[in-house]
Amino acid sequence: MDGNLSWVLDRATRIAGANIAVIDGDRRFTYRELDRRVAGLDAGLAALGIQGGDVVGVLALNSHRHFELWHAVPRGGAVLNDLNIRLAAAELRYILEDADTAALFVDDAFLQVGSELAAEIASIRHLIYAGDGVAPAGTLSYEELAATAPRPAPTLPPDALAGIFYTGGTTGRPKGAMLSHANLLANAKHVLTGFGYESDDRYLHGAPMFHLADGATTYALTWVGGTHVMVPTFDAALVAHTIQQERVTISTLVPTMINMLINLPDLDTYDLSSVRRLNYGASPMPARVLTDAMGKLDCEWAQAYGMTEASPLVTICSTEDHRRGAAGEEPYATRMRSAGQPVVGVQAEVRRLDGSAAEVGEPGEIWVRGPNVMQGYWRREEETTAALDAEGWYHSGDAAYLDADGYIFIVDRVKDMIISGGENVYSTEVENAIHMHPDVLEAAVFGIPDERWGERVHAVVVRKPGGTVDEAGIVEACRAQIAGFKLPRSVEFSANPLPKSGAGKVLKRDLREPHWKGMDRRVS
Amino acid sequence: MDGNLSWVLDRATRIAGANIAVIDGDRRFTYRELDRRVAGLDAGLAALGIQGGDVVGVLALNSHRHFELWHAVPRGGAVLNDLNIRLAAAELRYILEDADTAALFVDDAFLQVGSELAAEIASIRHLIYAGDGVAPAGTLSYEELAATAPRPAPTLPPDALAGIFYTGGTTGRPKGAMLSHANLLANAKHVLTGFGYESDDRYLHGAPMFHLADGATTYALTWVGGTHVMVPTFDAALVAHTIQQERVTISTLVPTMINMLINLPDLDTYDLSSVRRLNYGASPMPARVLTDAMGKLDCEWAQAYGMTEASPLVTICSTEDHRRGAAGEEPYATRMRSAGQPVVGVQAEVRRLDGSAAEVGEPGEIWVRGPNVMQGYWRREEETTAALDAEGWYHSGDAAYLDADGYIFIVDRVKDMIISGGENVYSTEVENAIHMHPDVLEAAVFGIPDERWGERVHAVVVRKPGGTVDEAGIVEACRAQIAGFKLPRSVEFSANPLPKSGAGKVLKRDLREPHWKGMDRRVS
Repeated sequence: MDGNLSWVLDRATRIAGANIAVIDGDRRFTYRELDRRVAGLDAGLAALGIQGGDVVGVLALNSHRHFELWHAVPRGGAVLNDLNIRLAAAELRYILEDADTAALFVDDAFLQVGSELAAEIASIRHLIYAGDGVAPAGTLSYEELAATAPRPAPTLPPDALAGIFYTGGTTGRPKGAMLSHANLLANAKHVLTGFGYESDDRYLHGAPMFHLADGATTYALTWVGGTHVMVPTFDAALVAHTIQQERVTISTLVPTMINMLINLPDLDTYDLSSVRRLNYGASPMPARVLTDAMGKLDCEWAQAYGMTEASPLVTICSTEDHRRGAAGEEPYATRMRSAGQPVVGVQAEVRRLDGSAAEVGEPGEIWVRGPNVMQGYWRREEETTAALDAEGWYHSGDAAYLDADGYIFIVDRVKDMIISGGENVYSTEVENAIHMHPDVLEAAVFGIPDERWGERVHAVVVRKPGGTVDEAGIVEACRAQIAGFKLPRSVEFSANPLPKSGAGKVLKRDLREPHWKGMDRRVS
Repeated sequence: MDGNLSWVLDRATRIAGANIAVIDGDRRFTYRELDRRVAGLDAGLAALGIQGGDVVGVLALNSHRHFELWHAVPRGGAVLNDLNIRLAAAELRYILEDADTAALFVDDAFLQVGSELAAEIASIRHLIYAGDGVAPAGTLSYEELAATAPRPAPTLPPDALAGIFYTGGTTGRPKGAMLSHANLLANAKHVLTGFGYESDDRYLHGAPMFHLADGATTYALTWVGGTHVMVPTFDAALVAHTIQQERVTISTLVPTMINMLINLPDLDTYDLSSVRRLNYGASPMPARVLTDAMGKLDCEWAQAYGMTEASPLVTICSTEDHRRGAAGEEPYATRMRSAGQPVVGVQAEVRRLDGSAAEVGEPGEIWVRGPNVMQGYWRREEETTAALDAEGWYHSGDAAYLDADGYIFIVDRVKDMIISGGENVYSTEVENAIHMHPDVLEAAVFGIPDERWGERVHAVVVRKPGGTVDEAGIVEACRAQIAGFKLPRSVEFSANPLPKSGAGKVLKRDLREPHWKGMDRRVS
């Protein structure tokens, strides 16, 4: 019997019922209180006719109610669709329709856009107001739902779908990664094994809860009866204040958040001594930011690498690697620039295009396998088949190489790798070189067709206001840092910001497209 | 893709290939070396015609070869049957035949009995000598098998059977608990989550490896790339010496072993400072032994409770409970006498005879559910159905009550509970009271038929040499400690030691039987 997500809160309530489960501003709930509210929501959803397999959308900032929905929606077999709050209305509509969303929860921040979407989308039968005020006309009251008399939790098979998590917009239309109860339970165990949360940990949900980088902790920390501390959205001063006020011990933040935190002008005035570890991940960590952060915040550091399709945790670069690496000790200093090693329970290998194992140092694609790997993309058979092979490997699209100790160094997205004259060029390496020029605000590098070399390195650069660097200046800046065959052969200057997805990732696809019109590319 | 046991060594080899995997006397093997030997054994077994589903027996003291077999046998789909080395030849024969054992590994200690059994048992096609000398006539050489050229590891479904572990003889013929790859992997994750082993831990296999109390660590510690330190069998002086010599950090021992260790006359002469934690379990820990041990060995302590049928870990009484409990702080001092709380991933509840949940403080039977719970008893449909219900709960037969924080206090075996005049009497509580009399060497308490009270409390006592206590003296000694309705109503003195199973447990069944001849008992 493999269990389901209801086991997580069940254990916390039994072993730590009097512990504080959630702190959200002035509100705090014990695990017993949380369990009662979650059971009420489950019964309330059932009373609304939400059945097993029905998709329930959530469009909200971080809050105790948002947290409760992660437990309440899957409890009865419904499917959580937690939406990226940075998306535009049209993107949200696409996802809500694609998922056949049956009910939508919105908080005060998203009441208006949620109301409009609910009115337009035929499948949405209920709009539920999860804000702090009185439920407006046309919405149901979250608090009334939560007060429903509980029902016995239905028995769910472990492969029941628990959530559909839509991923990035850098490769086309958003795709819904289908994560089962077993997937999310496996990930929670991997997180606990890798990070060692304890019942007296107080975790700050500083990154948005819809993102699995934060969501990974939602189940893991609950399982050990720890305390979840909420901030509605990342604000460096609010985060510092909350850490001090609630004696936060752990958080997972993305590099830009850490950068904002350490650059608070009054950072020194906060007492952040309760923090025992910060995890970072979800995007590359610039070396300078990490060095600064480790200098300014006296705690342990760990990096996590993963992806929505893996629920998400795949590798960890450990606290020891960071501690000894920061002191300049090898091989830790080098390892500190890696994504780390596969966590217990997950296989991650670097494979060549033909599927064979890459040698140490040889770049290839990261393949991931384990009980945490998604069931597939919602209603996308073709993309599912392309991503998941018959042996259970998920082909991540991330390009990387291994060192002799199994540390994974990520170099690029596979599709952004440039093969020029038979040599591999990683776009990220060239971008990093271009960024060293003080006039550069943004840069994107990709391959464009070249009759002689197959592909050649092309850069699109946005100058800082007042910046005057030209093509020769860019190439010159790069020459000092990277080999000749990696240098941009052409540079294009854009007056506008680079196009980005709702999640803030640069859409290289849009930049690349005009150059490849009517031509086939090696890697799609 | 849930994986199989080969993932465990695969990860260790990739992330910690140069770490020492096993230390056995003067021999030490890195994970890369271990992996090569295990792969050779797997291929060698296949070359002998051992196929998926074939049962491979092991009859051996602890050693690096014994350890290798835990990885090699299941790797290709064969089924490990690691035999209790304390059993008599007739019991071993019963188990080997019951399991249809196809091949048997023996070391020097068991060469003779193993050779005799292999000659007698028709199903055994190969006898493999895993000792240190030259393989005697009629046996195959372990080292030659290990030198076989590896084959690609077969893909196994996670529910493939990995081992048959025969359990106790206190309730009848030994039964083989069938544990799948998924069961043992789940347990390894639970061990890691609960105990937090690290790659720099050095674990002493001081308890016999056939027993899952030790076996639990075999996969768990390997998964993180830690070091396994072997002693052939428990010997207090050898254990102390090995801890000092190899800087052991962790071990799991049974209470009698801990008692022997701390009573070493020259304990103070050993440097045991490397030990960071000792786990104990598998039988009740007398309070005095724990107090003494905590006073003499300066490390962290944790208790594990489990059973073969649960692969085995179910609950842990934490290091914090021990640390604060030892200082007399409540509620920790009380909790320290409990089995602790269910680990992450395992459900354990106390249920009444009718299956409903017992109240706090009310005794009932421990039910266990989780991905670690066995598939059933090998070829014992009736006993499987009696032990595993349709909802996946394993009915453990252990009687216990819960406190308000979910701590489980084990009071007895359910079948040894006595119901006298409607009151529950726990045989263990009465036995503990009898043991306080200085003349008592052994005592067993059980219920016998009584016309007025249904059952009445009966004791069988073995006096120490020279002891003269009589029935009145026993009852008088108990009266100071337990309530009147729990007092023995009849006491029988035995000149012989109490009958015991091969695992050393008192066979109350044999003592009880004559009293119940021709009568039905409430609990079988």
